[in-house]
Amino acid sequence: MSGRVTVLTGGVGGAKLVLGLMQAAQPRQITAIVNTGDDFRHLGLAISPDIDTLLYTLSGKANAAQGWGREGETWTFMDALKSLGGEDWFLLGDGDMALHVLRTHWLAQGETLSAVTARFAAAWGLGLSILPMSDDRVATHVAADGGELPFQRYFVEQRCAPAVRAIRFEGAEQARPAPGVIDAIGDPEARAILIAPSNPWLSVDPILAVPGIRDALAAAPAPVVAVSPIVGGQAVKGPTAKLMGELGLEVNNQAIAAHYAGIIDGLLVDERDGGEGLAIPYDIADTLMKSLDDRVRVARAALALADRIAAGR
Amino acid sequence: MSGRVTVLTGGVGGAKLVLGLMQAAQPRQITAIVNTGDDFRHLGLAISPDIDTLLYTLSGKANAAQGWGREGETWTFMDALKSLGGEDWFLLGDGDMALHVLRTHWLAQGETLSAVTARFAAAWGLGLSILPMSDDRVATHVAADGGELPFQRYFVEQRCAPAVRAIRFEGAEQARPAPGVIDAIGDPEARAILIAPSNPWLSVDPILAVPGIRDALAAAPAPVVAVSPIVGGQAVKGPTAKLMGELGLEVNNQAIAAHYAGIIDGLLVDERDGGEGLAIPYDIADTLMKSLDDRVRVARAALALADRIAAGR
Repeated sequence: MSGRVTVLTGGVGGAKLVLGLMQAAQPRQITAIVNTGDDFRHLGLAISPDIDTLLYTLSGKANAAQGWGREGETWTFMDALKSLGGEDWFLLGDGDMALHVLRTHWLAQGETLSAVTARFAAAWGLGLSILPMSDDRVATHVAADGGELPFQRYFVEQRCAPAVRAIRFEGAEQARPAPGVIDAIGDPEARAILIAPSNPWLSVDPILAVPGIRDALAAAPAPVVAVSPIVGGQAVKGPTAKLMGELGLEVNNQAIAAHYAGIIDGLLVDERDGGEGLAIPYDIADTLMKSLDDRVRVARAALALADRIAAGR
Repeated sequence: MSGRVTVLTGGVGGAKLVLGLMQAAQPRQITAIVNTGDDFRHLGLAISPDIDTLLYTLSGKANAAQGWGREGETWTFMDALKSLGGEDWFLLGDGDMALHVLRTHWLAQGETLSAVTARFAAAWGLGLSILPMSDDRVATHVAADGGELPFQRYFVEQRCAPAVRAIRFEGAEQARPAPGVIDAIGDPEARAILIAPSNPWLSVDPILAVPGIRDALAAAPAPVVAVSPIVGGQAVKGPTAKLMGELGLEVNNQAIAAHYAGIIDGLLVDERDGGEGLAIPYDIADTLMKSLDDRVRVARAALALADRIAAGR
């Protein structure tokens, strides 16, 4: 067994786990497969929120207090944009614009999102492999009271207020996994595959919707361990608990395990919730990730559960 | 005769005259026809330096000390861009990016450069009509020792250092004047048509290279008056004098008048140079434009020369 670890991740919560994983494992042995269902074009710019959150988090540039964007960001662009009558519901920081402008430019020149993402990660010396789930366009749409909304309109503009009835991943059926994704999941020497505590419906499901990825996870040689996004009967951040209610689900770890049934071999649950009623292997830990130490601890606990599952095989 | 005035203009020097003209005439009666030969794509963004200089100058946003860009500009974007390995020879300020991003976006949606420029001017309440010389792409190239350079490479990256042998306006033969350009020049009721003290070869010639504009000027009912860019045997700013030398011309008003022969009816010259040897009507004034009062004075002097020419017809 190598020390190689693959992690499926969405936005802020996932990025925290990956940051912890960077100390719990060797960065060069980590592959992060990132949700791109949130990606969209805004003012003509190609924006990949979850990839950017991961880049900022791992490079120490993230604004932790705000939960998105860059630390020390400036807003001169937005001020000028407003003065010109440009759309201002989605905030674009001055430094943040560099990722969007370069990504848009390089994509227009024929580079793939994978290649662009690799260039960004290399420029900031991150060490791990960051793979978009697909180089093809997949767009998460939320069917809510009042009609269907593109993800960012739901998430940012409407602040998750509409009650969600269904979620659709436009383009997923035609999408192919990005180069390296299936190989990372199917790696016979891998130590573990982790699913970060990102929103299972909005952030992980888009990854699973790309044909081939779900099957690869089900057949993965390495143990697949999810870190539950539930802490104390609630989601730490974002609309997970609200969404689960709207989808008619109870907010507990059984619902998370059921959602990932057939894919995961184990679930890491928070000590406030426990694993009562779970039919799969689980470990209990303090999964709240406030400090860097917390993140490393949660990553280590997830790896330990994977190791325990592997040892029992 | 109406009070309508049309002015052909390039960058900084031209924008100063137009700013003076905004007090010497009614803004609603002013049409500025702007050089777009400097326009280029950079990082995928559509950049129109002379239009932007005019927008910034007239809206009070220009950085007068620097001579380009916005007052109070921030540079977070450039810092982030450099960290990602993006090209950094052309400086893009954070606020400046708003014009480029919106222009690029609206052009991609099928709007013309004329329409985009009009939206910007309206958003900032400028009052006058700002027309690009053409909605079609015209790109100034400089043939210099060592090969041909796109204008911005010559002007910004190489700081006008290469000796210029020839100047070419790519695309000009196929370009059409933007809507309103020919009408403004041919307006039978116009008071005057001014040519700003912009570089005749680099900033005004691209305008004249658009088929129909030179002929319209030659046939214009209103007096056409150029403000000479020569002050005290030198150009106030930029490469005009250096360029004239490289093109084998003496740096004097006779050379300017010869360059505009067949187009202009009069030349406003600086008191340091005088009009000796000029075969066309001229007036002498202090044409150095340091303060706003200077700009208004020069605009008024140019209009007075036009009025004198009209009265003598």
